[in-house]
Amino acid sequence: MRSFPIEPVAWVQSTRDHTRDDGWAAETVTITLDARFEAEALTGIDTFSHVLVVFVMDRIDPATVEVGARHPRNDRALPRLGIFAQRASRRPNRLGVTVCKILGVEGRVIRVAGLDAADGTPVLDLKPWIATFGPRGEVIEPAWVAAMHAGYWGDEDAAS
Amino acid sequence: MRSFPIEPVAWVQSTRDHTRDDGWAAETVTITLDARFEAEALTGIDTFSHVLVVFVMDRIDPATVEVGARHPRNDRALPRLGIFAQRASRRPNRLGVTVCKILGVEGRVIRVAGLDAADGTPVLDLKPWIATFGPRGEVIEPAWVAAMHAGYWGDEDAAS
Repeated sequence: MRSFPIEPVAWVQSTRDHTRDDGWAAETVTITLDARFEAEALTGIDTFSHVLVVFVMDRIDPATVEVGARHPRNDRALPRLGIFAQRASRRPNRLGVTVCKILGVEGRVIRVAGLDAADGTPVLDLKPWIATFGPRGEVIEPAWVAAMHAGYWGDEDAAS
Repeated sequence: MRSFPIEPVAWVQSTRDHTRDDGWAAETVTITLDARFEAEALTGIDTFSHVLVVFVMDRIDPATVEVGARHPRNDRALPRLGIFAQRASRRPNRLGVTVCKILGVEGRVIRVAGLDAADGTPVLDLKPWIATFGPRGEVIEPAWVAAMHAGYWGDEDAAS
């Protein structure tokens, strides 16, 4: 088994310090590059509307990670799903990936909307959102998925 | 600096063994869960049309990673961009994130279309593509970005 030394490239500052489930849109969130990077590493990110953020959900105790299947949110009314068929945080490697709206950039700091990561979360990568690398062709997801996330952001009027 | 022990959860099998730039759609690609996982870890992934794949671009020599700004594809006709404002593979942590179409699932193997990762690439996470976590609101990217990627997949008629 190879393993990879992965180091944070940035850190999340958020008005939320826990990772409970819903209402994320109310939070004010910035991402600050780690001190080893200069501001030029963000040059041009403000010409894109969205940034994809890869982060480590480091509040999750590795001992609680699911490696098989479970009911999302432990709700037995939902289908039992493999850990790689859901976005549960208690997952191998504890990685989160979310596409956030860029509100502003100043020096080594990006202000974003819609990042579901707690204060202090280590960020492993930032990429501009480019449609070429998003889903191509018709997107299908089970109806219960949208229902489960109905309150996730808490500003559903703002969603497109 | 904290670092995180990250271990592959799956591996890419592809008809392409290098990471040169264009024509990726022609490749036949499967992703096989690492031997420590059972097939149930994929239960239900086939009820989604797309899967988000996080992988390590391990053919990239860490000594060549860019930490500041560069011209994409070293093309001086393109704007000089920070490494976090582009998807260049020579990036800190060498992570790739691509959303692929699911063609089929059999046991511990997913067959996908549209994965730009070479044969043998280690995969760090698989998540179903859920629109709630994609871009919300209007998406803007510079016009030159789409132009640069015009031949990336090589099946642009199939793109939506």
